[in-house]
Amino acid sequence: MEHVTVTFLRDDNIDAPVLIEGLPGIGHVGKLVADHLIHELGAEKIGKISSLHFPPQVIVDEQGITHLVNNEIYRHEKDGKSVLFLVGDFQSNSPEGHYVLAERYLDIAEELGVKRVYALGGYGVGRLVENPRVLSAVNMKHLRSEVEAAGGSFENAGSSGMIVGASGLLLGLGEERGIEGICLMGETSGYIVDPKSADGLLTVLSRLTAIEVDHTSLQQRAEDMEQIIAKIQEAEEARGREELSYIG
Amino acid sequence: MEHVTVTFLRDDNIDAPVLIEGLPGIGHVGKLVADHLIHELGAEKIGKISSLHFPPQVIVDEQGITHLVNNEIYRHEKDGKSVLFLVGDFQSNSPEGHYVLAERYLDIAEELGVKRVYALGGYGVGRLVENPRVLSAVNMKHLRSEVEAAGGSFENAGSSGMIVGASGLLLGLGEERGIEGICLMGETSGYIVDPKSADGLLTVLSRLTAIEVDHTSLQQRAEDMEQIIAKIQEAEEARGREELSYIG
Amino acid sequence: MEHVTVTFLRDDNIDAPVLIEGLPGIGHVGKLVADHLIHELGAEKIGKISSLHFPPQVIVDEQGITHLVNNEIYRHEKDGKSVLFLVGDFQSNSPEGHYVLAERYLDIAEELGVKRVYALGGYGVGRLVENPRVLSAVNMKHLRSEVEAAGGSFENAGSSGMIVGASGLLLGLGEERGIEGICLMGETSGYIVDPKSADGLLTVLSRLTAIEVDHTSLQQRAEDMEQIIAKIQEAEEARGREELSYIG
Amino acid sequence: MEHVTVTFLRDDNIDAPVLIEGLPGIGHVGKLVADHLIHELGAEKIGKISSLHFPPQVIVDEQGITHLVNNEIYRHEKDGKSVLFLVGDFQSNSPEGHYVLAERYLDIAEELGVKRVYALGGYGVGRLVENPRVLSAVNMKHLRSEVEAAGGSFENAGSSGMIVGASGLLLGLGEERGIEGICLMGETSGYIVDPKSADGLLTVLSRLTAIEVDHTSLQQRAEDMEQIIAKIQEAEEARGREELSYIG
Repeated sequence: MEHVTVTFLRDDNIDAPVLIEGLPGIGHVGKLVADHLIHELGAEKIGKISSLHFPPQVIVDEQGITHLVNNEIYRHEKDGKSVLFLVGDFQSNSPEGHYVLAERYLDIAEELGVKRVYALGGYGVGRLVENPRVLSAVNMKHLRSEVEAAGGSFENAGSSGMIVGASGLLLGLGEERGIEGICLMGETSGYIVDPKSADGLLTVLSRLTAIEVDHTSLQQRAEDMEQIIAKIQEAEEARGREELSYIG
Repeated sequence: MEHVTVTFLRDDNIDAPVLIEGLPGIGHVGKLVADHLIHELGAEKIGKISSLHFPPQVIVDEQGITHLVNNEIYRHEKDGKSVLFLVGDFQSNSPEGHYVLAERYLDIAEELGVKRVYALGGYGVGRLVENPRVLSAVNMKHLRSEVEAAGGSFENAGSSGMIVGASGLLLGLGEERGIEGICLMGETSGYIVDPKSADGLLTVLSRLTAIEVDHTSLQQRAEDMEQIIAKIQEAEEARGREELSYIG
Repeated sequence: MEHVTVTFLRDDNIDAPVLIEGLPGIGHVGKLVADHLIHELGAEKIGKISSLHFPPQVIVDEQGITHLVNNEIYRHEKDGKSVLFLVGDFQSNSPEGHYVLAERYLDIAEELGVKRVYALGGYGVGRLVENPRVLSAVNMKHLRSEVEAAGGSFENAGSSGMIVGASGLLLGLGEERGIEGICLMGETSGYIVDPKSADGLLTVLSRLTAIEVDHTSLQQRAEDMEQIIAKIQEAEEARGREELSYIG
Repeated sequence: MEHVTVTFLRDDNIDAPVLIEGLPGIGHVGKLVADHLIHELGAEKIGKISSLHFPPQVIVDEQGITHLVNNEIYRHEKDGKSVLFLVGDFQSNSPEGHYVLAERYLDIAEELGVKRVYALGGYGVGRLVENPRVLSAVNMKHLRSEVEAAGGSFENAGSSGMIVGASGLLLGLGEERGIEGICLMGETSGYIVDPKSADGLLTVLSRLTAIEVDHTSLQQRAEDMEQIIAKIQEAEEARGREELSYIG
């Protein structure tokens, strides 16, 4: 086995100028957005990536069928405009593996003619956020105004921030190859899977890519999550009152 | 030293269509079954596998002789029907090593004409199980009915389960090579070596492979273990009563 | 990606007989000195080093632009006398990576004609130090008298000390290549970034290299740090008195 | 840098039929014996081994001179009878490194005509031992009687013991190359550096190798250690009495 194995399900007509990465991370924000887009667009799975830098395991599906842990490449084309997606259930096991995988992702991007990568993720702030911003970073200066025009914020800049893992390396290593990189990070607590933050991120991404999809299912998940949080908060307040009356 | 070294003790007539893997894991269920089969059938040791992905140590036997840590391949043939076994005392040290070793196991399987792998293991549930089921997973859809007919359960499917280590990768990487993979996992607490769960797993495996052996020694170990557990429970209850009378 | 990638920003006239290493370490003493020298001299950035042995991340600057984690080589030349600097934000992730990177640093040093390396660091003593010494080690015996003449102390010798990471390996592996190595370690508590210790180290280094720079900004930072420490100590003493009066 | 670098200080006349390994381990028993033999015989240092599998550091000696962490090969010849020693301050950082280094040690052994390896170590029992035995293991059955005749015990055999690290692998991997391996392990608490256990081990090793040296310095260290232990025990008993009288 090579350290990374890439298998394409078809060969022809699979290039695209844009790659959207939504691997798992803080609040699963990036993954929620990418998975939602793939589902709404009905994007086609065109490739898969397995690697000894992923955990050594298989996933058992609802039918009892095993699937080797991997990342997947999807593609969507409409009116001559095409886009690629990089999604999956895992990032690398090890620091070195992150570099090996990111270089390989960029090899694939170059082969398929990608000129720009959108790396999607969450920006953990350690508390619930009423109106999550979409914090941003770019790997080339000229990209900033475009992101700001689309509603991306750069208020995080200057706080000596780091972007760790696939999203960070796609920008950092992509720059060396001349591939534009835009990282969009939905503000999120970091404690929960956060469809509300994902919904906001999707709005900005849609403006940037001119890819429009229905938000309903994402917003529904966001509402469900809001209700779960509200119930937890209520229960905690109730317990707080009880304790007070007991003391009193 | 190569990362994995395979040494065959003989060359001729060592192929077989079936490989049964029983490396150590949860409750040592898979190892108990495979070791029992090898012992009862009088299977012949035909190869050994050492690797720098195993722990860096030797085992000292009853004679004071050292043996490099390794995995072993056994083979049994009767009435023109042959079967291979993969057993040993260790799995890999590291995530990467699991992939390297599993690929090598599959190289050996392909060389020896193996068409199907049975990967045996335990399924930890965190409590003592009165009637352990044999939970199952397969790497190709058409295998499922056969496993169910033999008494394997798929009730675990749909719980987003993972199968970690050699068993999982033999199925996941085996699928890529067109080798059928069936994983049988005896339900077990995960706290003890579990010959009772192994006994149940052996019954299902025998139906699938048409390999019949005497279960007596396995059942005897299961009874011994039941008695040990009963004594521990008794002792705990006695202590419970004492504490109660003391309080009272 | 190679394990280490070295990129020079220009090719011509970049050699120098001396390399000063100031990577992060105890009290950031070495980093403070090297960064101060680069700033005061107005040294020129001539190269950068990225590696999969660094953390897998990018740094976001004040403009929101990402930069792949790397180490950097600076060079200064004045009156025909030139010096190189090796600085950056990280050392290796792993023990093996330290060796791989140090060998590569020495490859660069050899290519650029370096005859002597100054490795700068801190020497942690676990308590605040009023008058921090500059403890020293050399990789060739004949270097010792020169270091002592410049005010470097060898009082640490004989305590079975170790020098870990880039500084240690530049001396140890440099010796094999015939490159002189002098390690200067500012005594420091190990609890704080320590510009005072750095100031003392710079004095010794200036005598050794005949590179003179203004110390003002470093001394200002040292004074600021002294005041912060004094305030913390005052606050602690005040709390101590309060507790006493409460008890009384 | 290669993963392992071996440097010989001279080329000619450096072979020997026997290699004695005394790297650090439990109670430093093996290291004490090998270092004592080298010192008493006045053995000559003929080679050194550095590796990225050792810790990334240098040792600072009493003169303030740095030395790259390494292992060393010594050789002694008298009356046409020669012996090699493998000693040093470290074993590998990682499980994989143990294998890589042990294979390299055996490459050296083969090149120098070694037919037998003595691997020296400690056997930790978790309590102070009045009369430490020399527990043994061999990698070929025919070696056992010779070891027993010299006073080595095999009472540890049959307890499913493991020998971990360089000593274990020299036997395990040496067997594959037809090199005889005898592991002698001085019984020791595992809590202290144990010259008494080393003294006993040296007696058995001397009978096996017909290498006789003065034991005085080793026995002196053993007596010193006994006195230290006695004082600690006295202090503990005194404290015990005090506590009793306090309670009374």
